[in-house]
Amino acid sequence: MKDKIDDIKEDMQDYIEKDISIDEQWIEDKYPIDIAEALSEMEEDRVHEVVKLLEIEDLAEIVEQSEEELQITILKSKSNEEIIEIFSHMATDIITDILGNLPINMSKKLLRHMKQSEAEVLKQLLGYDTESAGGIMTTEYIVFNENLTVAEALNKIRNIGPKTEIIDMIYVQNYKKELVGVVELREIFNNSDDTNLKDIMIDNVISVLPDVDQEIVAQQVAKYDMSAMPVVNKNNKLLGIITFDDIIDVIEAENTEDMFRMVGVDEEESINSPFFKSIKRRLPWLFINLGTAFLAAFTVGLFEDVIARVAILAAAMPVVAGMGGNAGAQTLSVVIRGIALGEVEDERKWKLVIKEGLLGLVHGLAIGVLTGGVLYFITGNPYLGVIIFAAMVFNLFIAGLFGFLIPLSLEAMGIDPALASAIFLTTATDVFGFFAFLGLATIFIDLLI
Amino acid sequence: MKDKIDDIKEDMQDYIEKDISIDEQWIEDKYPIDIAEALSEMEEDRVHEVVKLLEIEDLAEIVEQSEEELQITILKSKSNEEIIEIFSHMATDIITDILGNLPINMSKKLLRHMKQSEAEVLKQLLGYDTESAGGIMTTEYIVFNENLTVAEALNKIRNIGPKTEIIDMIYVQNYKKELVGVVELREIFNNSDDTNLKDIMIDNVISVLPDVDQEIVAQQVAKYDMSAMPVVNKNNKLLGIITFDDIIDVIEAENTEDMFRMVGVDEEESINSPFFKSIKRRLPWLFINLGTAFLAAFTVGLFEDVIARVAILAAAMPVVAGMGGNAGAQTLSVVIRGIALGEVEDERKWKLVIKEGLLGLVHGLAIGVLTGGVLYFITGNPYLGVIIFAAMVFNLFIAGLFGFLIPLSLEAMGIDPALASAIFLTTATDVFGFFAFLGLATIFIDLLI
Repeated sequence: MKDKIDDIKEDMQDYIEKDISIDEQWIEDKYPIDIAEALSEMEEDRVHEVVKLLEIEDLAEIVEQSEEELQITILKSKSNEEIIEIFSHMATDIITDILGNLPINMSKKLLRHMKQSEAEVLKQLLGYDTESAGGIMTTEYIVFNENLTVAEALNKIRNIGPKTEIIDMIYVQNYKKELVGVVELREIFNNSDDTNLKDIMIDNVISVLPDVDQEIVAQQVAKYDMSAMPVVNKNNKLLGIITFDDIIDVIEAENTEDMFRMVGVDEEESINSPFFKSIKRRLPWLFINLGTAFLAAFTVGLFEDVIARVAILAAAMPVVAGMGGNAGAQTLSVVIRGIALGEVEDERKWKLVIKEGLLGLVHGLAIGVLTGGVLYFITGNPYLGVIIFAAMVFNLFIAGLFGFLIPLSLEAMGIDPALASAIFLTTATDVFGFFAFLGLATIFIDLLI
Repeated sequence: MKDKIDDIKEDMQDYIEKDISIDEQWIEDKYPIDIAEALSEMEEDRVHEVVKLLEIEDLAEIVEQSEEELQITILKSKSNEEIIEIFSHMATDIITDILGNLPINMSKKLLRHMKQSEAEVLKQLLGYDTESAGGIMTTEYIVFNENLTVAEALNKIRNIGPKTEIIDMIYVQNYKKELVGVVELREIFNNSDDTNLKDIMIDNVISVLPDVDQEIVAQQVAKYDMSAMPVVNKNNKLLGIITFDDIIDVIEAENTEDMFRMVGVDEEESINSPFFKSIKRRLPWLFINLGTAFLAAFTVGLFEDVIARVAILAAAMPVVAGMGGNAGAQTLSVVIRGIALGEVEDERKWKLVIKEGLLGLVHGLAIGVLTGGVLYFITGNPYLGVIIFAAMVFNLFIAGLFGFLIPLSLEAMGIDPALASAIFLTTATDVFGFFAFLGLATIFIDLLI
C-alpha cells in the first residue's frame, strides 16, 4: 500500500525534473486518490510543479479526492478560469464542498465568474447546512416523465448517462414535476420498448427533505438498502440525490463522532492531526473533566476523618468507583449506538431504563459478592466486606441508570447524545460511589476499627 | 415511523381474521423490511398464519430483510421444497447467511434437496469465514469476455440483468478467465456498437482474495468510492462480488464493534438484546475489570500509612487517576479509529507515539498547574500542590503513551485493538497515577504534615 504511494511520488519527481507533460497512460494506471495521497506528502512548491504538468480533467479527479488542505493548495495556483474548467468535470456536491472550504472572497469571485445558471444552483446548495441532506446531495440525476416509454428512456439515458452520477436509478415525475416513482435500470432493460415508465415504476418512493440530518439519511439508506436517496422540496419536487459513496462517508464520520465525543475528542481529530490542533481539540475537555473530578475529590474530602482512622478505605475506594465507571460505560456505548441506529423508540424508553437499571443491580450483586469476599479475606473484617458489597450494588445500579439517562437527556436537549457523556457518567459514578461507600463506613465506623 | 409498523401489524391481523390471501397491491406498497419489523413484534403462531397468506416471492423478500430469529421462525413453518423455492429468489450471499444461521441438520437437509450445482456453490461460500470477503460476497454478477462488442454486451445485459445484484459494473475477463478489467455501464452506453470491451475497460481493477477481512474490504471500497468489490482467487479468476449494501452493514458493524469492545461489550449486543443475554455478554468483562481494579487498590494499599497521616491525599487521588483515565481514553479513541481507517502506518508509528507522549506532557503541564494551584489554595500547603502537579504531568504522559501502545500491542498480537483496551488503560493510569502521587507524598511526607 505504502509502496504504491512512494512509487507515485518518485515518478512525479521524475516528471518534474524532465519537465514534460505527464504520460496519459501513467495517469490512467493510477487511482486519483493515490495520486492525491502522494501529493499531500509533498512540499507545496513541488505540488504546484506537478499540477502544471497535469491535464485539467485528470486534475479535477485528483482535486475531488484530495483533503481540504491539498485542495486549497492546488486551486490557489490556478486562475479563476482554470478552476471553473476543473469544476466542469465535477458533480455539484463536490463543487459545493470545495467552495465551502475555500476562503470566502475566493469562492465569491469564482461564483461571479461562472455561468449564472450554474452559480444559482451552487448558491442554493451552499445555503444548506453541510451536515443536512441538502448539504450532501448532488444535482446530477436522471428524472423522466412518467409517460415516457422504455425505448424513449433508453435513448435518453444513452445521451445523458455519462453526465450523471448514478444511472441505475431513474426517477419519475408527473406533469406537475412531482416525484412519483423510481425505476431501476434493470427494469427498463427487462420490459418491452413501448411500456410506459409509470407502469413499471415503484411508486412508494422513500425521500427526504433537504433539511433532514445526514445521520437520519444514512439510517434510511442502510435500512432500505438504497443505492441513492432522493431529496425533495415540500411540493415533492426532486431537488437532488445523495449517492451511496457519500452515505458511506457519513456513516464513517458519524460513528467516529460518537466514539470521539463520548470521551471528549473533537470529531475533526485524526491520528495524523497536527500537534497544536490536537491540543486545541482535546485540552478544553480535559479542563471540563478536571472540574468534575474536583466534585469527586470534594465528596471524598467530606470523609477525611473516617479515612484517617481506617486508611484501608482509601485503597478500596478506586474499586467501587472504577467498577461503576466501567459498567456505566458499557450501558453508555450500547445506548449511544442504539440512538444512532434509531432503535430507542419513545414508547420503549421506560422498558429500557428498567432493563439497564436491573442489569446494574444484577451486575452489582455478582461483582459486590466477590469484592466483599476478597476484602473480608484480606482484612479479616466481615463488616468491611458487607459495606463494599452494598456500595457496589448501589453504584452499579446508578451506573446503569445514568448510562441510560445521560445520553437520553442530552438528546432531549437537542445536544449530541455522545457529547462528553463519558465524562458526566464517571462524575456520577465517582460521586455516588464514594458517597455510598464512605458514607456507610462513617455510619458503621465502630465496626471497622 | 412507528405508526407505519403498527399499521402494517393491524392490516395483517385483518388478513388473518378474514383468512384471505394478502392483496398484491398492499404488499407492493410496503417495504419488505417494514413488514419484517412488524412480524418480529408478533407472536410466533401469528407469524405462521401471516406467512401462509403470502406469495413465495414476497415472502423471500421479507425473509431476506428479517433478523436471524424471525428468519428461523418463518422457515421452520415451511417444507424443504418451499424453502428452496424461497431461496431461488435470493442472492447467494443471503442464502449463505441464512444457511449459516439455521440449525445444522436443517441446513444439511436443505443442501441435499437442492440442485447439485447450486449446492456446490453454497457449500463453497459456507466454507469462508463469515467476516471475510468470501463470507459476504455474492456469486451473482456480470462477467464478459474482453473481445465482446458493446452491442453484444448490451444485448446480453438485457437478458441477464434482472438476475444479478449489480448491473452498473460489468467485469471483463480474458480467454484464461482472468479478471482483466471493469466497465461501467455508462461507458457501454457512451460508446459505439462495435467497440470492444477491452478498449473501454478500466484495466487496473482493485480486487481482494476471499480470505481478506471484511474491515479491509470496507476500507478499500470507501477509499476508492467503489459500488462493488470483486473477489478473486489466486489465479485472478472472479469468484464473486461484494455489493455496497453489504459494505454499509460491515462499516456499521465494525464501528459498533470498536466502540463496544473498547469498554468490554460484546459486538452482538444491542439496546434491545434480551436481559439475560446482556448479562452474559457484559458481566465477564466486569469480572476482568474487577481483577485490574484490585491492582489499583493494591497500589493504594502500599501507602496506607501515609494516607492515615495525611488523609487529604485520599481526596486528591481520584483527580490524578480520573484525569489520566480520561486523557488516555482520548488517545485511545483516536488511535483505534486510526487503525480501523488504515491510517497508522508502520514507518509513522514512532512519530505518532512521540506525538501522543508529548501531548500527554503538555496536557499534564496545563492541567497540573491548575490542579496544583487549586490544592494549594484549599490546603494552604504549597508542597502538596507541587506533588500533585508532578504526579499529573507524569500520569498524563503515561496516559498518552499507553493510550497509543495498548491498541498497537493488541493489534501486533493479532487481537482486535479495541478489545478491552479501555479496561487495560484505566488500570495503567490508576496504578501509575496512584504510585506517582502517593510515592512522592511518602518521600516528602515531612513537608505535608
